[in-house]
Amino acid sequence: MHSPAAKVSGYIVLMIVQIIFLVLFWLFVRYEKTAMPPALGTEDAGSANEHVSKYPQFQDIQVMIFIGFGFLMTFLRKYGYSATGFTLFMAALVVQWSILMKGFLHMEGGTISLSLENIIDADIAAAVPLISMGALLGRTTPIQLLCMSIFEVALFAANEYLALNVLSICDCGGSITVHAFGAYFGLAVALMLRPASDQNEAGKHEGANYTSDILAMIGTTFLWVYWPSFNSVLASGTGAERAILNTFLSLAAATVTTFVVSALVSHENKLDMVHVQNSTLAGGVAVGTVCNLLLGAHGAVLIGIIAGTVSVLGYRYLTPWLTANLRLHDTCGVHNLHGMPALISAIASAIYASMATQNDYQSELQDIFPAMVGNNGTATKFMGGLGRNASSQAGYQLFGIALTLLIAIGGGILAGTVLKYTNFRNLQKDEQHQDEQYWEVPALENKEE
Amino acid sequence: MHSPAAKVSGYIVLMIVQIIFLVLFWLFVRYEKTAMPPALGTEDAGSANEHVSKYPQFQDIQVMIFIGFGFLMTFLRKYGYSATGFTLFMAALVVQWSILMKGFLHMEGGTISLSLENIIDADIAAAVPLISMGALLGRTTPIQLLCMSIFEVALFAANEYLALNVLSICDCGGSITVHAFGAYFGLAVALMLRPASDQNEAGKHEGANYTSDILAMIGTTFLWVYWPSFNSVLASGTGAERAILNTFLSLAAATVTTFVVSALVSHENKLDMVHVQNSTLAGGVAVGTVCNLLLGAHGAVLIGIIAGTVSVLGYRYLTPWLTANLRLHDTCGVHNLHGMPALISAIASAIYASMATQNDYQSELQDIFPAMVGNNGTATKFMGGLGRNASSQAGYQLFGIALTLLIAIGGGILAGTVLKYTNFRNLQKDEQHQDEQYWEVPALENKEE
Amino acid sequence: MHSPAAKVSGYIVLMIVQIIFLVLFWLFVRYEKTAMPPALGTEDAGSANEHVSKYPQFQDIQVMIFIGFGFLMTFLRKYGYSATGFTLFMAALVVQWSILMKGFLHMEGGTISLSLENIIDADIAAAVPLISMGALLGRTTPIQLLCMSIFEVALFAANEYLALNVLSICDCGGSITVHAFGAYFGLAVALMLRPASDQNEAGKHEGANYTSDILAMIGTTFLWVYWPSFNSVLASGTGAERAILNTFLSLAAATVTTFVVSALVSHENKLDMVHVQNSTLAGGVAVGTVCNLLLGAHGAVLIGIIAGTVSVLGYRYLTPWLTANLRLHDTCGVHNLHGMPALISAIASAIYASMATQNDYQSELQDIFPAMVGNNGTATKFMGGLGRNASSQAGYQLFGIALTLLIAIGGGILAGTVLKYTNFRNLQKDEQHQDEQYWEVPALENKEE
Repeated sequence: MHSPAAKVSGYIVLMIVQIIFLVLFWLFVRYEKTAMPPALGTEDAGSANEHVSKYPQFQDIQVMIFIGFGFLMTFLRKYGYSATGFTLFMAALVVQWSILMKGFLHMEGGTISLSLENIIDADIAAAVPLISMGALLGRTTPIQLLCMSIFEVALFAANEYLALNVLSICDCGGSITVHAFGAYFGLAVALMLRPASDQNEAGKHEGANYTSDILAMIGTTFLWVYWPSFNSVLASGTGAERAILNTFLSLAAATVTTFVVSALVSHENKLDMVHVQNSTLAGGVAVGTVCNLLLGAHGAVLIGIIAGTVSVLGYRYLTPWLTANLRLHDTCGVHNLHGMPALISAIASAIYASMATQNDYQSELQDIFPAMVGNNGTATKFMGGLGRNASSQAGYQLFGIALTLLIAIGGGILAGTVLKYTNFRNLQKDEQHQDEQYWEVPALENKEE
Repeated sequence: MHSPAAKVSGYIVLMIVQIIFLVLFWLFVRYEKTAMPPALGTEDAGSANEHVSKYPQFQDIQVMIFIGFGFLMTFLRKYGYSATGFTLFMAALVVQWSILMKGFLHMEGGTISLSLENIIDADIAAAVPLISMGALLGRTTPIQLLCMSIFEVALFAANEYLALNVLSICDCGGSITVHAFGAYFGLAVALMLRPASDQNEAGKHEGANYTSDILAMIGTTFLWVYWPSFNSVLASGTGAERAILNTFLSLAAATVTTFVVSALVSHENKLDMVHVQNSTLAGGVAVGTVCNLLLGAHGAVLIGIIAGTVSVLGYRYLTPWLTANLRLHDTCGVHNLHGMPALISAIASAIYASMATQNDYQSELQDIFPAMVGNNGTATKFMGGLGRNASSQAGYQLFGIALTLLIAIGGGILAGTVLKYTNFRNLQKDEQHQDEQYWEVPALENKEE
Repeated sequence: MHSPAAKVSGYIVLMIVQIIFLVLFWLFVRYEKTAMPPALGTEDAGSANEHVSKYPQFQDIQVMIFIGFGFLMTFLRKYGYSATGFTLFMAALVVQWSILMKGFLHMEGGTISLSLENIIDADIAAAVPLISMGALLGRTTPIQLLCMSIFEVALFAANEYLALNVLSICDCGGSITVHAFGAYFGLAVALMLRPASDQNEAGKHEGANYTSDILAMIGTTFLWVYWPSFNSVLASGTGAERAILNTFLSLAAATVTTFVVSALVSHENKLDMVHVQNSTLAGGVAVGTVCNLLLGAHGAVLIGIIAGTVSVLGYRYLTPWLTANLRLHDTCGVHNLHGMPALISAIASAIYASMATQNDYQSELQDIFPAMVGNNGTATKFMGGLGRNASSQAGYQLFGIALTLLIAIGGGILAGTVLKYTNFRNLQKDEQHQDEQYWEVPALENKEE
């Protein structure tokens, strides 16, 4: 499997995939009507602008996906080319695939409509394999990652369809469908790829240096700043403003909590950059599913405090335990940044759903919990029919996270099995966490100069 | 004071502060009516979008606060974790505090309304202690910084209320209320914490290395690019566009001037990165108070040229003089980037106010100089009453900056006294400007690898 | 020429230029009417906001110019101060000059109107000399660069006027007028400044180290993310949304292709950071001229695949050949990122123009191909008159790129001749690609600490 031919064949497969995408775009994808020139005499300057009113938020999300995720993973001292480069590669592949996959699930008349909305959805979908990549960082080949991501995104699209369109759960910021799915899928793959028990120690390059830790803060800070855009982009009506406010407050509270708890539990009470880089963001995940609900500022702050605490304690105690006992390695600690905070978000969504009333949500109940409205004017058939009561909606929220965990973990086990036992090349222990395997790296003398 | 208990107690106090914030949010803060679901039958899709129309500018300001300020301070070669990390910590604490503090000053019916506007204001308020932090960078403990910032933001909110709501001065970009206040408050604290005269030399880690200087340029460039958003976000009507144009031109002119003056006055006529990182931004500060006025392009460019010149000369001559003679250390040179350019802005505001006529400002006079309008339809009682003439408004502008300096310096002396003479731990000379004191830092062998 | 006086004189000239700009702004530039306070009683809150609706896209472009271009050039391991600093210096000078130059070409009644549009145009113009700077990176003095850029921007404005206002070609994303012009102008200057044949080897500092390569990815990723804003900002109607979609897809396809082709053609099939940093962006250039046309998703993806392939092959084979045979050095490979992809875009524009029909473009034909409309209601006199047919428009597209190449190369040869044979100081071989020549650089011991 080390022969040049083997190395090249994976890339050739990816080129073929890109060409298949080209053909599928040609066969199925057309600009949405609003992105086509209006017929002569019917032009209306306003409506074209209206249609791209979410463009600034789209750009914020682009920064999160391509820069935030990429730089967050540069903390490994010898894996920065891969962190930034493979993020770019994977996201560029996945956004195309996601337009097609989600398009097939929603196509009308044999045609996939292409508009700004679709590429916003595609960017959100790209977050899913990037989260999984965080769990596996440095322990896979790029070909393994990219093949995994193609399967994962297809499964993600199916699970999201189930959760939102069949179960009709609320998940405005995607904590259930994006964060929980990506994290537990990635952890399941990591479990399948776990090392032999005599190789369970940390990799010799699996750590940061001073500069790589600061570069990772580029990722942290851009994710922090733009997280309100991620959570609010799919909200409608006044829910968009609440999503912004709640996410902002939850992030702020999680950040303060992260610093405090990090200092309290760390060695010699010194702050730990791993916590600062990651747990500060847990507030954004934990508020995700409920960000457009009537949490109140105190609700958002409380969620942030819980998320920051759980996340830091996860890094400090749970991750080492999982590694020692299950040989489950999680390079970036996605379980602490995405996994557990997403569970918090799902539980919070059940609690808030159980208290939702028509009186509180007024005209927006239909947008937020469409299955709770008796006759909502749509032909959509949700599981269990329309007119759910609040506790029933709460039950569906829990059903939604349970189903997501099941599909993500099942899919991850399947993907991990394929990556491990079929023809894919697997990295040896001493090849891990270093760019040299797949990149031309400048000779050391240049570095010391 | 070095015992673990002492180290931990500060963090525990901050956790208690966070929990107090939670309680205050619960008791007093409610979403503004426009962020609540409209009653059934009254929904209007347009108005919700309208209400968050400043969201892109808010995001620009977020980048300035969390990334711009943070990375600008990474220029110290061993203090990058603290620069980025404490910026995040402090800003996350201050934005919550600021929502509450400014809320209490403007509350109606015992309730603080929460909307996008409040978090924009909160971000602006977060700039204030970050500016002060620049003066003190590397010479305080994080606990000192955070306690200082809580006091400082409360005082800032009071001073801002006095300047804008009582004196009715114009200060669109906040150069008086934000930049001058933050800079002179920080310098007053620095004066109180000045070293003994036998310890007045620069710290042994107080300098940049090649990589840290480039990382600092991340801060510089993002601050540069988004400064027009900071200055224009609170402008209304056509003043917003003028604020954008004037800030852009002033920054450009200050940048050209900075390079030229830096080369002319520096050792061997080589450019100095300190000047490039900081003085290029002085144009944004110097145009701040007047950015929405009818400066004309030439007015903005002239202000930029003056600001760039003064700022570079300040770095080259004044800062070393202050350090040598007053033992006033100013790590980032905030006096040159924020202090003196803010004074220029205040003086410019007096000059332009003295020339303001109803004929020039037409329907916007009331927005910009509300006290100059005879009967402006508001019940607000400004000092000196309504119907001021232009020279009187100019006088109030000067009164505004003088009062701000008085309150900032007085407050800073008070804060510095408390930090020095009460129970707070103070850093020793050889503990300064290095992350090792408060952070787990990778061992050197990793760095050299 | 090495005397201090000579070193200083260039900076003094630049200061004089800045002061001349101040005078010209004072004499000629006035705020546009929409940026002036409306007369009492005529205020309309909506229209002021409307007028700055492109502000978020402007900010994206600002990030591209000041951060994207700057950091992309930090890949050289000893030239990061210059890459980020001179980008800031040059852009700050050029934006002012461009407002004036383009203003003189479009002035009415002896006055240049200043509005958001002008500074958007100015930012786009700033890209031109920055592209040329990429070809010359490390081999010129800052004074040479800045003088070159003043001449180049004037010539650019003239060529753009010819191409758009006389030939009436379509060039929505500026690939012809900005990218091709900047690249070939810079290459022509590089040809004139080519080294003696015994000095044709690469400079000893002309390479990356591990950290500088990752810093360059800051540039790459921000350019990638915001490129849709660059291409769409001048599009109108539904063309803006198509420009966003097409640019996004072309970039994604070029990125996947770049990784694959890089692995296939590189040494030991390892990925090459130079390709990843640059060729991933070729999709944005190659789709530029045609980004608002009815390409379809497949058209955009196909253009991206071609651009990525051509760009990587250019880096791998053509650039070394040009250096070896013509002594044409191109430090950043702008020929592969901007030059050839712009030619692809021009050819694509001829192809798509030749298929354009009134039936397809409906009400937007007039915006996109104004000379193809019989009576378009404007008094503008295009070369060849109104009512062009599709093949004629295709011919004009090719004429446009040919003329642009002619003017750019001619201008570059002229500029290079002046830089080489007049009084300008030229860098010696061993002075190249290092900041030490023009910057105070921290001593090495600080670096190793």
